[in-house]
Amino acid sequence: MSSEQGSVAGPPQDEYRILHEADLRDYLAAVPAVAARLGGAAEAWSIGEVGDGNLNLVFIVKGADGGVAVKQALPYVRLVGESWPLPLSRSHYEYLALTHQARLVPGLVPAVLHHNEGLALVVMELIEPHIIMRKGLIAGALYPRFVGDIATFMARTLFFSSDLALTAAKKKEGIAAFAGNHALCKITEDLIFTDPYRVAEQNRWTQPWLDATAAAFREDLDLHAAISRLKLIFLNAPEALIHGDLHTGSIMVTEDSTVVIDPEFAFYGPMGFDIGAVIANLLMAYLASAGHETSSGARRVFEVWLLETIENVWTEFSHEFLELWRTEGHGDAYPLTLFPGPAGAARLEVERQAYMARLFGDTVGFSAAKIIRRILGLAHNADFELIEDPRQRAICEARSLRLARAMMLEPSAFPTIGAVTMAARMVRDWLPDFAN
Amino acid sequence: MSSEQGSVAGPPQDEYRILHEADLRDYLAAVPAVAARLGGAAEAWSIGEVGDGNLNLVFIVKGADGGVAVKQALPYVRLVGESWPLPLSRSHYEYLALTHQARLVPGLVPAVLHHNEGLALVVMELIEPHIIMRKGLIAGALYPRFVGDIATFMARTLFFSSDLALTAAKKKEGIAAFAGNHALCKITEDLIFTDPYRVAEQNRWTQPWLDATAAAFREDLDLHAAISRLKLIFLNAPEALIHGDLHTGSIMVTEDSTVVIDPEFAFYGPMGFDIGAVIANLLMAYLASAGHETSSGARRVFEVWLLETIENVWTEFSHEFLELWRTEGHGDAYPLTLFPGPAGAARLEVERQAYMARLFGDTVGFSAAKIIRRILGLAHNADFELIEDPRQRAICEARSLRLARAMMLEPSAFPTIGAVTMAARMVRDWLPDFAN
Repeated sequence: MSSEQGSVAGPPQDEYRILHEADLRDYLAAVPAVAARLGGAAEAWSIGEVGDGNLNLVFIVKGADGGVAVKQALPYVRLVGESWPLPLSRSHYEYLALTHQARLVPGLVPAVLHHNEGLALVVMELIEPHIIMRKGLIAGALYPRFVGDIATFMARTLFFSSDLALTAAKKKEGIAAFAGNHALCKITEDLIFTDPYRVAEQNRWTQPWLDATAAAFREDLDLHAAISRLKLIFLNAPEALIHGDLHTGSIMVTEDSTVVIDPEFAFYGPMGFDIGAVIANLLMAYLASAGHETSSGARRVFEVWLLETIENVWTEFSHEFLELWRTEGHGDAYPLTLFPGPAGAARLEVERQAYMARLFGDTVGFSAAKIIRRILGLAHNADFELIEDPRQRAICEARSLRLARAMMLEPSAFPTIGAVTMAARMVRDWLPDFAN
Repeated sequence: MSSEQGSVAGPPQDEYRILHEADLRDYLAAVPAVAARLGGAAEAWSIGEVGDGNLNLVFIVKGADGGVAVKQALPYVRLVGESWPLPLSRSHYEYLALTHQARLVPGLVPAVLHHNEGLALVVMELIEPHIIMRKGLIAGALYPRFVGDIATFMARTLFFSSDLALTAAKKKEGIAAFAGNHALCKITEDLIFTDPYRVAEQNRWTQPWLDATAAAFREDLDLHAAISRLKLIFLNAPEALIHGDLHTGSIMVTEDSTVVIDPEFAFYGPMGFDIGAVIANLLMAYLASAGHETSSGARRVFEVWLLETIENVWTEFSHEFLELWRTEGHGDAYPLTLFPGPAGAARLEVERQAYMARLFGDTVGFSAAKIIRRILGLAHNADFELIEDPRQRAICEARSLRLARAMMLEPSAFPTIGAVTMAARMVRDWLPDFAN
């Protein structure tokens, strides 16, 4: 729909060029759906570049009647520069993922107004007055809608792209449609599943306090085997169309609303990678919280809420996913004809629980991987980075690494989400050697 | 190379038509690579249709200098007729798989001389004086080359299309290239992983002796859960480019040579499906052997060889696959940089053994699935079908089902291939109730 508008209004096969402010104004003025949303004279629109991510240009454009966000991919990693090229096609995959999500969870993702594949450009509704969730969590804010919204987002986007909902033919079509997004997958493969465990130029950590831990992680062969098993799942398990980068920096919130953005890493991969990303980032928010205290215990209410939120993310996701399976499980996996009658229904329910237990195991592993990469790898989290005292930051990070290492090496010690939050509480006040 | 010859010599974008004898003669005469192979005047070539498979037309063409096999896909399942349509594209996937295999195991697959995608036609070298291995096994023949050849075929075709050998980008490209072969996958999904366990019009079994067993399999919910888990792996684990139909009817043999044919079911799926197919068909040959005895014990040497062969198929496959991993494991999975030095090498070796144990578990499950479908589903095996006395046939089939059911429900009782052959020996002389 939006793309058809685009192909009528804007030139559909534009040759790529970076759109600077004046260009962009003219371009948007020629797209009826966008011009109508903005309203008023194009000359009066305000345009500001706000991209604070690592990869793209992002413009906020406001007119008399409303605003839009314009995201244009650059042919390289913005954070690094032209020395690290990255295909423009990621914009197309982001567009495909956004439309998939918009169909399943309208209101939980920005509506797409226009897409131009040649320009690697997506124009979306402006999400306001939301802020990036990570910023809110650093400030100690509570988001009562978040659990329900993110559980619904994950349950619906994952379930409806899985073999539980789709025919095998449709699923293979989806896998093939996203197979070309391998350059973005490669970033994940390198930065999450490989580099933090070996000497890599781009790695960094809070020195000197974490030097010994970073070295221990680089030498821990059991950990290397565990992360390699997780990498193999990432390479080899197209369970569902996953967001692929579902951290709290990809989620915009108010108290009343949750909007998930930036699915340019989307591909058919393991569901646990998305769920683990959410849980990992909440665990880091929890363990970073001590670093943002103005006085001891000042953020206790926030921290209690956060632990409950972590538990409820899994519990509510699991509840919704299972309910979808029970009511809309018409895919080729687990055909209902093999489980007839009350006895069949009961046996299938046992199987569903086993499926969720396996998925939870993946989630724990991927969650651990996401924590470790944020502390020992290239891309760090503001949750920790904004802790001013580096020694205090290192203490919070060391606690997180201690938890993550246990989660990765001893998944059977974390059979439930309660076991994860219990371990997080236990490590909350642990002091690493350098702090004694 | 072959396809280029085709696109020069024959019309590359022919509209599909079924080639009858006269047509075929004219067509082949216009393909230089084929005409040269056959030799002499086209009018003197002998052409015979020999397709005894379920899906396609197969012609043997012989000339003064040599012969070729011509395989043309029909737009429906030959066995059933036009009421069961099947895409012609399978010919293209067969061609892709054949060229992949020819690159990795030349000599173990027929060389492709010509391919015409529009006509759904592949012309291959004629494999002679080989016979279909299943026929040889029914006759009690021994094939000393078989183990080494099939182990090499599987080790090389599977390893070199896996994440252990490929970059993730290359692997995703391969997955996408075969995603369109879903109609052939669907046949497997239905006929192997679903129908034998429910009432389905096409199911058949040796009546009345197996009526009770067939009913028990249709009502065994634990078995339905187990086959559904295997189906999920089939749907969801693009580990490698598998042959997809690797039974003893897809293998041509002499005492000195082994050639694998008919990879039209090829796609990126679980490796255990191919290995399980080979082992299942050898187990069936073993348990059918009693039905072909002229006197008790007359085929003992053959049966001993068959059990050794089953063991060696796994052992030699595993040995070759591991050796390839050790020497050519440059793919994105298990990167060597995470396992440096002697300690790293030792840890990775432990991980390799764990990988093979998991793969063996899949193999046992898929092997069981392949046995059950041949006795309770649509497509049966000549191994059993040619046992003239139906009661004796039912006894051999009941033994096979007993073994397969245990393998599917209690995989942990089959940790090694020796446990599988031991169970096969134990069930070799078991008598079902109806035989007492």
